[in-house]
Amino acid sequence: MDNYVRIFDTTLRDGEQSPGATMTSAEKLDVARALARLGVDIIEAGFPAASPDDLEGVRQIAVEVGQPNTARPRPPLICGLARASKSDIDKAWEAVKPAARPRIHTFLATSEIHMRYKLKMDREQVIERVSEMVAYARGLCEEVEFSPEDAGRSDPEFLYLVLGEAIKAGATTLNIPDTVGYTTPDEFGALIAGILTNTPEIVNCVVSVHCHDDLGLATANTLAGLRAGARQAEVTVNGIGERAGNTSLEEVVMALHTRRPAFNLITGIDTTQIMRASKLVSNYTGFVVPPNKAIVGSNAFAHEAGIHQDGMLKHQQTYEIMRPETVGVTQTRLVLGKHSGRHALKTHLSDLGYALSEAELDKAFARFKNLADKKKVITDADLEALVADEFYQPHEVFTLDGLQVTCGTMGMPTATVRLRGPDGQVRTHAAIGTGPVDASYKAIDAIVQAPSTLLEFSVRAVTEGIDALGEVTVRIQGTNGSSHLLNAQKEVEQPRTFGGHGAETDIIVASAKAYLMALNKLLVATGKYGATEKAATAVPA
Amino acid sequence: MDNYVRIFDTTLRDGEQSPGATMTSAEKLDVARALARLGVDIIEAGFPAASPDDLEGVRQIAVEVGQPNTARPRPPLICGLARASKSDIDKAWEAVKPAARPRIHTFLATSEIHMRYKLKMDREQVIERVSEMVAYARGLCEEVEFSPEDAGRSDPEFLYLVLGEAIKAGATTLNIPDTVGYTTPDEFGALIAGILTNTPEIVNCVVSVHCHDDLGLATANTLAGLRAGARQAEVTVNGIGERAGNTSLEEVVMALHTRRPAFNLITGIDTTQIMRASKLVSNYTGFVVPPNKAIVGSNAFAHEAGIHQDGMLKHQQTYEIMRPETVGVTQTRLVLGKHSGRHALKTHLSDLGYALSEAELDKAFARFKNLADKKKVITDADLEALVADEFYQPHEVFTLDGLQVTCGTMGMPTATVRLRGPDGQVRTHAAIGTGPVDASYKAIDAIVQAPSTLLEFSVRAVTEGIDALGEVTVRIQGTNGSSHLLNAQKEVEQPRTFGGHGAETDIIVASAKAYLMALNKLLVATGKYGATEKAATAVPA
Repeated sequence: MDNYVRIFDTTLRDGEQSPGATMTSAEKLDVARALARLGVDIIEAGFPAASPDDLEGVRQIAVEVGQPNTARPRPPLICGLARASKSDIDKAWEAVKPAARPRIHTFLATSEIHMRYKLKMDREQVIERVSEMVAYARGLCEEVEFSPEDAGRSDPEFLYLVLGEAIKAGATTLNIPDTVGYTTPDEFGALIAGILTNTPEIVNCVVSVHCHDDLGLATANTLAGLRAGARQAEVTVNGIGERAGNTSLEEVVMALHTRRPAFNLITGIDTTQIMRASKLVSNYTGFVVPPNKAIVGSNAFAHEAGIHQDGMLKHQQTYEIMRPETVGVTQTRLVLGKHSGRHALKTHLSDLGYALSEAELDKAFARFKNLADKKKVITDADLEALVADEFYQPHEVFTLDGLQVTCGTMGMPTATVRLRGPDGQVRTHAAIGTGPVDASYKAIDAIVQAPSTLLEFSVRAVTEGIDALGEVTVRIQGTNGSSHLLNAQKEVEQPRTFGGHGAETDIIVASAKAYLMALNKLLVATGKYGATEKAATAVPA
Repeated sequence: MDNYVRIFDTTLRDGEQSPGATMTSAEKLDVARALARLGVDIIEAGFPAASPDDLEGVRQIAVEVGQPNTARPRPPLICGLARASKSDIDKAWEAVKPAARPRIHTFLATSEIHMRYKLKMDREQVIERVSEMVAYARGLCEEVEFSPEDAGRSDPEFLYLVLGEAIKAGATTLNIPDTVGYTTPDEFGALIAGILTNTPEIVNCVVSVHCHDDLGLATANTLAGLRAGARQAEVTVNGIGERAGNTSLEEVVMALHTRRPAFNLITGIDTTQIMRASKLVSNYTGFVVPPNKAIVGSNAFAHEAGIHQDGMLKHQQTYEIMRPETVGVTQTRLVLGKHSGRHALKTHLSDLGYALSEAELDKAFARFKNLADKKKVITDADLEALVADEFYQPHEVFTLDGLQVTCGTMGMPTATVRLRGPDGQVRTHAAIGTGPVDASYKAIDAIVQAPSTLLEFSVRAVTEGIDALGEVTVRIQGTNGSSHLLNAQKEVEQPRTFGGHGAETDIIVASAKAYLMALNKLLVATGKYGATEKAATAVPA
């Protein structure tokens, strides 16, 4: 058995499916580019049958990220999820076929509890459907992955049978999900070992593991599966995903890397890209990374605490098992100042992976100069916040034309907001609120008229120092109930939430921008304003 | 071997030691009370040799939480950490001896790398010191725990020898730390099994496991150690701790609970108190819990996503392996409204665990009424934020007397601040900043004159809705370098950071209060203002 572990990233499918992690098409495309830079083997780009927008989002990734180029002659496989139905498989194929290396991933539950209560099918029906649908997918696509959903709670003997049939029908990868995060490492390792021993003809397939973190065991279960012989790991950046999330890409990759002699397994990941990918996904989803998160938390490396200079700790490995540079944590934070020119900015953004058009660069440079007037030191984090704020806007239905706020301990916080509407008209409204943000949002609501509930509001300073950029993240949900998201496994629609972010040194202005961005996404999704977001969005090439 | 696992909580020692998690004495006492309610067996309350304040903090917990009462006739053991020196052990004993059930925990490193580079001792010297110091501690205290630091990277044969000597000298608990989070579950389980098999007379001791999450394996390693025969698990709430943190209390407890037949191990934890303890620790340390954190994240339970009503999912266990009620997630969020009276507030706060004096209740009621005027629905979360804001203030050197702010897109954000100083005098200052927070902080700085760097600034809405309370958390570090914190293992001083929080519907006012709280802590710590924080703090009984 070879020792290469394929990294299958499902940040854009299982990750994005978690409540509140919804991303725009432009954001997803950008995450896909980051995953390609990271060197993942397979990108599961979405669930095309969920909606025409989802299909188009996956297709766009297949077209733009799934192609060979000089930097990466062998591009990542682009994979689309499909339930075990011809219609789903057709849509998945339509979405992934422009990729140089497409894959269709289909699934059907095999645990008693899922077959009885969700599928209402018996064992024979399940086997028949799996055979038929895997064969149908294989008729379209060379690479077909099949997952027996809730494998962790399935009867192993039945699992061997189903998997054997999937292989006969042409499956090339067999993925074993612990859908509800229920197993222990010993159990999950034994399950994989049992499958490898007892499933006929399995030597011709790659066995894959897909774990969830409900009991905090996703990484350990994944590693136990790989040790037992699986050679694909399904993971997400920062471990985002439904409930407690999926297995963290960074934990599995760095455990294999740091304990190389113990595992004797390798991956194709460029570990120095881990931190950048982590920050990108955190920014776009609004899922914070806590300081004590393994690998990518701000405290993860001992030397960051400012104690590494101490003479007594001169032998680095006393308290450090990984070097921060290995995962892309860099020490040089000062990057540009107020005298830096347009060319320096362009070079720097390009190093960060942003290839802006001339027009976009003009806008970025203007914002950069404006920020440099206020803030002494501009760091990578500042630049990434600015670029995200400027270029990953959805179609702008309403834009902020002006804001004036008064607040303080005397009460009566008041905001005056001026917005430019889709008709080009400028409207102004003043409102009083319980605080400056509430007042601003009430004034915006009075003009925009899109009823919504604010689910989440948070602000963080992008860098240290009181003159830092403040990045505001909001999450709203429309109250008219018109916009829903289809969950592939549960086959139920869940209310769709919309995130917005804004980065400004004035956090009240940033709050207004973030809210307006979320409202604009909501308005576009409800179909009131024709243009789809992607047509109107400036996407870096 | 019995099947009872002792839960040893080190949130207040190894958790609090992580950069940025510094808590005040009043906050620590409150966390200790929460841990007692949770039912932990041992509370490691601190490292008394670090400073007289630390010693006093541990002593206070021994006096107030370490005593039997009608609700808990057998109180938790109160444990203090000590390096392997008489002076440290004396201080630990002084701090824990008022407890009904005191414990001293001492340690010495046993890995080659630590002995050579940190201790500069050879094996013989290490063994001699361990014998001597364990015996000395046992002369003072019935319960003595010994940890061979960096056991995960120590030579097992040497470990058996050292542990055998510790037992001879009177150790009652032997704790095996994977100090750098380096081992895999198989390795760590084998280490514990080897220790149990090869250490002379170990049957008379409890073996304990202490893991770190650098590779995301802390929970799995802890469970592997318990399965191999360890009967004490050292953990922290939310897994806080240095670098990637310690093992999460909630993950270990709920894995044992949910997979009871697989592990056949029990704990004394009241799982319904888990969520409350998690929120308390998150509020006091400012360490956020991400939505996808196992057990205690806001997304951890499937039904929270609003899809559980769906008919198809009527069989709960299809996607749910734990009931949210089991860990204390409650659905009833509405608790009090503007017409609720003083008695209702008192009863409700008492249910939440806050026993306020009449004077404190008066203050709390005034703030509650003020908030109820602004906000339709007051929830548990609002009340906890208010109480924390009001009663866990350090000694107030400077207090906010007034704040007035103007900001917006026209630029020139301006803040006027009025502070009452330690001399009772009121001073006013106006400043312009890059935003309203920067302007306020500059105005405060001009009056307070305590040079510091802002390390972190974040705001989150306490509940949903735009009229929510905004809770601001800041973390600062004095720039004069005078205040340091002693790290027990590394024996180095790290710069001490000070946190502050403020909860107001006006986030600019909350930001000013949070900053002032952190500055007050800094001023008290530098000794410029005599009163120690604890003397001046109102602590709920």
